Amino acid sequence: MNTNLKKTSHVNHHHDAKVNGSILAPVTVIGLGAMGSKLARTFVNNGHVTTVWNRTPEKAAELVGLGASGATEIADAIAASPILIICVLDYDAARHILEPMREKLSGKVVVNLTTGTPEEARTMGTWIRNHGAEYLDGGIMAVPSLIATPHAVILYSGSQTAYETYKQVLERLGTSHYLGSDPALAPLNDLALLSGMYGMFGGFIHAVALAGSEGTKAEDFTTTLLMPFLQAMISTMPEMAKQIDTGDYSAKDASLAMQAAHDTIGEVSRVQGVSAETFAPIFELMKRRVEEGYGGDDFASVIELIRKRPSS
Amino acid sequence: MNTNLKKTSHVNHHHDAKVNGSILAPVTVIGLGAMGSKLARTFVNNGHVTTVWNRTPEKAAELVGLGASGATEIADAIAASPILIICVLDYDAARHILEPMREKLSGKVVVNLTTGTPEEARTMGTWIRNHGAEYLDGGIMAVPSLIATPHAVILYSGSQTAYETYKQVLERLGTSHYLGSDPALAPLNDLALLSGMYGMFGGFIHAVALAGSEGTKAEDFTTTLLMPFLQAMISTMPEMAKQIDTGDYSAKDASLAMQAAHDTIGEVSRVQGVSAETFAPIFELMKRRVEEGYGGDDFASVIELIRKRPSS
Ligand SMILES: NC(=O)c1ccc[n+]([C@@H]2O[C@H](COP(=O)([O-])OP(=O)(O)OC[C@H]3O[C@@H](n4cnc5c(N)ncnc54)[C@H](OP(=O)(O)O)[C@@H]3O)[C@@H](O)[C@H]2O)c1
Ligand SMILES: NC(=O)c1ccc[n+]([C@@H]2O[C@H](COP(=O)([O-])OP(=O)(O)OC[C@H]3O[C@@H](n4cnc5c(N)ncnc54)[C@H](OP(=O)(O)O)[C@@H]3O)[C@@H](O)[C@H]2O)c1
Repeated sequence: MNTNLKKTSHVNHHHDAKVNGSILAPVTVIGLGAMGSKLARTFVNNGHVTTVWNRTPEKAAELVGLGASGATEIADAIAASPILIICVLDYDAARHILEPMREKLSGKVVVNLTTGTPEEARTMGTWIRNHGAEYLDGGIMAVPSLIATPHAVILYSGSQTAYETYKQVLERLGTSHYLGSDPALAPLNDLALLSGMYGMFGGFIHAVALAGSEGTKAEDFTTTLLMPFLQAMISTMPEMAKQIDTGDYSAKDASLAMQAAHDTIGEVSRVQGVSAETFAPIFELMKRRVEEGYGGDDFASVIELIRKRPSS
Repeated sequence: MNTNLKKTSHVNHHHDAKVNGSILAPVTVIGLGAMGSKLARTFVNNGHVTTVWNRTPEKAAELVGLGASGATEIADAIAASPILIICVLDYDAARHILEPMREKLSGKVVVNLTTGTPEEARTMGTWIRNHGAEYLDGGIMAVPSLIATPHAVILYSGSQTAYETYKQVLERLGTSHYLGSDPALAPLNDLALLSGMYGMFGGFIHAVALAGSEGTKAEDFTTTLLMPFLQAMISTMPEMAKQIDTGDYSAKDASLAMQAAHDTIGEVSRVQGVSAETFAPIFELMKRRVEEGYGGDDFASVIELIRKRPSS
């Protein structure tokens, strides 16, 4: 790391509001697993006074070598900075660490980048606020190696004041999106993105298996045909999204009735010895939607079968 | 259309081998539905002597107005050009049109751009070859409005000689890929790409429904979060494809055991009132693969559960 930068930050850091919210605020990172240690290293590399703590203290050694302060007691780690970044296994672990420190949290900003459910985030947010701290929940959409690049997307929800105060600090880690004041929004959107990814990956393995059933290599098929095709199909999503928002699904190119007339993908998969189990429920939805009288709709209309009905 | 070009092409066209294979070969288009008429128009616009035929002759009128020759008899349409492009509803319709013309096919190149199954393509290929013609099967991965742009991808399989002779003519229609001499390959890869698309679209509706369960608009979520995320995830596909080709699935980032430890997506979907029916079979595959002892593998390893086993 750059020693000049580090010195400068040491000289300039006082815990007043201006500096706390500034781009060089001191930061505490709690949890030094694969992800937490990459987060901590990023702050150190950017000249932040960085305090680190981990249940197993050995994991702090490398970061201390790079210039971080290793806190032996969690209380010292919490006292050291106005903003606490927590990234541990799960919410139980986070709660386990913070519970005994409840009296030390007042005035802090707690940013919890541990993966969890919307419910866990809401409960944690309420608990943190009840102890006089601001709460931001975050969902990291990246692996550690992407952290500190624009390709690392991190979703935030919770205290808007906290987000705006520390936006520049948080953006050290990657591209950040603030989704709203309900702490549940970050984990909910995190899971939504993952469900989109798994759908695409389910399609990927089916596609590769089907093409491969007559000997086509996965890599040729993927790079030459599938990836450009999926790119092109991604570009139809804003139009589908608009249909979902407006409820007007009038078919432009290929109606559901046309698409669900024959289960050609299912039948050919069977002939080729490939299981169509990832495709079957999608075809089922299209067929059901046609049966319910929406054969003239575009594909996006099937969302009405899986989402909460406005009436319920 | 450009009249000069049309005149030039009229002057230059003789049905000798050189001209037949050249970029200005005369072309016959059989079937003038939404797709066929766009194909015919593209040839006319590019200065080809273009002969058109449709069961319902009225559909030829507009093309004739643009400079195409409208054949009343299918026999005349076939006689007019060395290359016949067929684009009708299905293979039964194609067979119905060609059966009575079996004696007129000798020496022709028949390019069938009708959507069908690998088996239908193989049967048609054999039948066409038995009548002294070359056969190319094609799968159009585009809507009519994309035809004549590079974004229209057309897959071809069958006679390599025919493909190479008429490559430049076929590329009037879009980007073409020749997949091999077995006519089944174009429809098989066509269906494989569609299965990939449906998987992605299944993920799309689940993702939008989940994010929408707390009020996020589909369009915001799709354009700001989902599309960039899916783009990033597409870029991991070549690595997964390599794992599939080599059979070495050693986990790099997130093992199946980690991914299948909790069905968080399924559980949160239930809490939010969203059906996880498109995600369930993918999670099921991950869980089964872990149970079978492959928890240390990357996601791509689940393909082993859906594809034809080398032993079977
Ligand atoms: N790695 C990724 O690619 C990735 C991506 C996105 C999100 N995330 C999320 O980031 C979080 C951390 O992931 P990771 O990859 O860093 O995990 P990891 O390498 O397994 O590290 C887990 C961390 O949690 C701590 N911990 C576990 N149980 C604890 C307890 N009861 N009390 C105190 N500390 C406890 C561990 O401390 P010890 O060292 O003492 O065991 C360690 O610091 C997870 O929620 C994960 O879902 C990770
Ligand atoms: N449109 C697309 O977006 C698209 C995309 C990719 C592939 N395709 C494929 O392209 C092919 C044609 O699609 P299209 O959109 O042009 O369909 P279309 O608009 O419905 O036209 C169907 C064509 O087939 C003819 N036809 C139907 N049954 C016939 C029979 N028994 N004998 C003779 N002709 C018959 C029709 O003739 P009449 O006019 O006399 O009824 C018409 O020319 C299909 O296989 C389709 O899957 C279409």
